[in-house]
Amino acid sequence: MKRSLLLCMLACSLTWAQGGDDSRPAPTNVRGADYPRVHSDSRVTFRLEAPEARRVQLQPNSAAEAENGLGKGPSDLVRGKDGVWTLTTPPVVPGLHIYHFLVDGMPAIDPGSETFMAGRGGAHYGESLANSGVEVPEKGVDFYLLKDVPHGVVQELWYYSKVTAEWRRAFVYTPPEYDRNSRARYPVLYLQHGGGDNESGWVRQGRMSFIMDNLLAAKKAVSMLVVMERGYANPPAGTQPPGGAASALTAWTAIAGDSAGASSAFRVQDLVSRLRFEDLVIRDLIPTIDARYRTIADREHRAIAGLSRGGEQAMQIGLAHLDTFASIGDFSGGSSARAFNPETSNNGIFKKVDVLNSKLKLLWVGSGEAEEPAYHYRRFHETLDKLGIRHVFYESPGTSHEWLTWWRHLNQFVPHLFR
Amino acid sequence: MKRSLLLCMLACSLTWAQGGDDSRPAPTNVRGADYPRVHSDSRVTFRLEAPEARRVQLQPNSAAEAENGLGKGPSDLVRGKDGVWTLTTPPVVPGLHIYHFLVDGMPAIDPGSETFMAGRGGAHYGESLANSGVEVPEKGVDFYLLKDVPHGVVQELWYYSKVTAEWRRAFVYTPPEYDRNSRARYPVLYLQHGGGDNESGWVRQGRMSFIMDNLLAAKKAVSMLVVMERGYANPPAGTQPPGGAASALTAWTAIAGDSAGASSAFRVQDLVSRLRFEDLVIRDLIPTIDARYRTIADREHRAIAGLSRGGEQAMQIGLAHLDTFASIGDFSGGSSARAFNPETSNNGIFKKVDVLNSKLKLLWVGSGEAEEPAYHYRRFHETLDKLGIRHVFYESPGTSHEWLTWWRHLNQFVPHLFR
Repeated sequence: MKRSLLLCMLACSLTWAQGGDDSRPAPTNVRGADYPRVHSDSRVTFRLEAPEARRVQLQPNSAAEAENGLGKGPSDLVRGKDGVWTLTTPPVVPGLHIYHFLVDGMPAIDPGSETFMAGRGGAHYGESLANSGVEVPEKGVDFYLLKDVPHGVVQELWYYSKVTAEWRRAFVYTPPEYDRNSRARYPVLYLQHGGGDNESGWVRQGRMSFIMDNLLAAKKAVSMLVVMERGYANPPAGTQPPGGAASALTAWTAIAGDSAGASSAFRVQDLVSRLRFEDLVIRDLIPTIDARYRTIADREHRAIAGLSRGGEQAMQIGLAHLDTFASIGDFSGGSSARAFNPETSNNGIFKKVDVLNSKLKLLWVGSGEAEEPAYHYRRFHETLDKLGIRHVFYESPGTSHEWLTWWRHLNQFVPHLFR
Repeated sequence: MKRSLLLCMLACSLTWAQGGDDSRPAPTNVRGADYPRVHSDSRVTFRLEAPEARRVQLQPNSAAEAENGLGKGPSDLVRGKDGVWTLTTPPVVPGLHIYHFLVDGMPAIDPGSETFMAGRGGAHYGESLANSGVEVPEKGVDFYLLKDVPHGVVQELWYYSKVTAEWRRAFVYTPPEYDRNSRARYPVLYLQHGGGDNESGWVRQGRMSFIMDNLLAAKKAVSMLVVMERGYANPPAGTQPPGGAASALTAWTAIAGDSAGASSAFRVQDLVSRLRFEDLVIRDLIPTIDARYRTIADREHRAIAGLSRGGEQAMQIGLAHLDTFASIGDFSGGSSARAFNPETSNNGIFKKVDVLNSKLKLLWVGSGEAEEPAYHYRRFHETLDKLGIRHVFYESPGTSHEWLTWWRHLNQFVPHLFR
C-alpha cells in the first residue's frame, strides 16, 4: 500500500489528485463533481471540504437494516492538510447506497451527489429528507440503465382527493406507443414507494421508466401504465382511529404485521394514514386514472405492488380488494416475514386458499438475500407453499434493503403481469 | 423589542417555542418541518440544530445580485442553550428566496426545506447544487398557486441528441385537454432556466404548470405546449471554439453581452456550450417535439423565452433563427442591459428594424424593479423605443433577480403569445 502510494506520488500525481487512476465519479454525482468516486474494484472514495470541522463521518442510511459495505455505523473520514476530509471504503456491494455525512455530529448532504429523498432516524413521521447517494455499477448489467430503445414518458399529474381534501401529485408512466395508438387501452400497475420516500422515488432512484422501456423493447412485458402516488394520507392532528387506539394496534398487526421499535403513538398514526390511503386509492386515485387515461378498467388488468412499506401497502390494499386487483407484488415488504399468521394476517384472507388461488392471477413476493430477517421472505414463501397458495418467489442475490434489490424485483415482477 | 420578548416569555412560552404565535411553516418546507417559519409581517425565522458548531450563518444565494431582505452577506444565527441556532430576519420581500447555511464556514442545506437546484459561488461551470428555499407568500395573489382548475400534465421525455451524442431529458407541459382532443394541434413555447439551474427548474420552483393552468382556466392564454430543456451543451474537455479563443470572446460579447467577473476561460467554454445548445435546439430538440407531439410546426406557432442566462439564450437563438421562431421573451436576461450595442449585438440584427418588426410577432422583455443594473431593462426598453423596434416591456414591482419576478414574467408574457 505504502509502496504503491509512493510510486503514485512519483508517477501519477495528476491522476492521484483525481482519486487514483482507476476510479471514476459515481453516476449519481451532480454534473462536474469529481467525488464520490468509484474504483474498479468497487471501493468508494468520499470527500468533503470542511476545514473548520473537528470530525467528519460517513453515515449510511441503511445501517439499521442492511450491510452493503459502507459500514454499519458512522465511519470517520480523515482530515488532509488542506481541510479536505476523505475516506476510501473497502469494496462495496453494487447498487445505489443512500448516505449522508455527520459534520461534528450534524447531518449534512454531500454537495457532490444528487439528492435522494429518504427517511432518516429522527425525522418526523412520513417525512422525506434530502440525502446523498452513490451508485456502484453492477458489472455487465444494464437492465436499469437508459438505453437506446423507444422511451415512454413519465407524466406529473395533479388531482383532487376527496378522502384527504387536498390536491395530490401522481406520476404516470405511459409506454412509448401510447400517444400513437390513440384507440388502444392499457392495463395499469399501481406502484408504491417505501417509508420516508415519496411519489418521485420510483421515477428517480427507482429507474422505473428505464426498466419498463427495456422490458418492452425486449418484448419481455406487456405494454402498461404505471401509476405512482405518495403512500401517506395523514389525518388532521389529533384524529383518533376508528374503535380507539387499542383496537387500532390490533388492526395494525393484522394488516401490516409487527413493527419492532415503533412507538404505539407512531403505530396508531400510521394505521390511520394507511387506512385512509387505501380509501384514497379505491375512491380517488383509480377513478382519476381510469377517467383520464385509456385504461382497461377491470380487475384482471389492474395490479398493485410496492417496496418495503409500499409492499405492505400492496398486500393490505390488494388483498382487501380482490374485486379491484387481480395481481399483487410485495417487494421486501417484510410484514409477512415479521409477524405472518395465516389465521389472522390481512384479516384472515390466507385461510381462504381457494379464494386466493382463484382470484389472484399473480401473487409475487421478493426479498434480498442480504436483507435482515425482518424483511426476508424465504420462510413466508415456504409457508405459502405449505398452505398451497400459488405464488412466485424471487430472492435478489447478495443485496440488502436498498435499490438494486427493488430494481431487480420490478424487472422480475413485470414480465408476469397481465398475461 | 425587549419588552415584547419579556411579555412573551411570561404569556406565550408554548407558542414561542413554535416561533411566535403568528408564524407558520413556509410553504416550501418538507412535510412536517416546523422551520423555517414565516411571520404575518413577512419576517422569517430560521433554525438549525448543530450543538457542536461554533458559528452558524444564513447565506442568501442571491446576495451578489439582489436585495430581498435576507441580507447581502452571511448573517449570524444565535445559539440557544440546547445547541439549536436561530435567526429572525426583518420583513422580507415576497417570493421564493434561495439560501443555504454556513456551518463553521461549510455550506449546508436546511433540513427543514425542500431542496432547489441553483448555482452557487465556487461551483463548477454549469453545475447545479442542492440549495434550500423559503417561500414568503404574496398576500392576495394566487396566479402561481395550485388552484381548483383543470390541470395539464408535465411529461418527462428522454430523447437522443446527435449534436452532443447523448440522451437528454426534456420536460413537456401539455394542456388539460391535450389527450381528449386527439386531433387538435398546438403551438409550442420553448422555455429556458437560468444559470446553475436545470431543466426541472421551471417545473418545480418555476410553478410553470400552475401558472399555465390558471391562465388557461381564466381564458387569458391560448392552449400550448411548453418545452423545457437543460441549457447546457458542454463540449468534450479541451474543445476549442471555432476561430480560436480570441474571436470567441468577441463573439461572446456580440451574442450574450458582457459578463463582468467571468474569466476568459469561463467565457470561452460558455460560448462553445451556448453555440452547441443553439445547434441542439434547432437540429435535435424541435424535430423531436414536432415528431412526438401534435404541434403546429411553423415559425408563427413557435416561441422561445427564458430567465436570466436563459433569457440571453432566447435572444441568441430566437434572433438568429427568425425562420424558426416568431416570438421571443427575455426575462431578466441582462445581456442587453449590460452591453447592448445596436450596431453589433446579436450579430447586428438590431440594425435591421424592418426585418425585426415584420418577422417578430412578439418581442417581450422584462426585469424586476429591484434588480441590479446589470439585469435592468428600462434603458434597453427606451433604446428599443428610440430604434423603433416594436416590443412589450414589463417591470415587476419591488422584486429582484429571483423567482417572483419570473413567475410574474411568465404570467405576463404568455397571454401575448400566438394571437
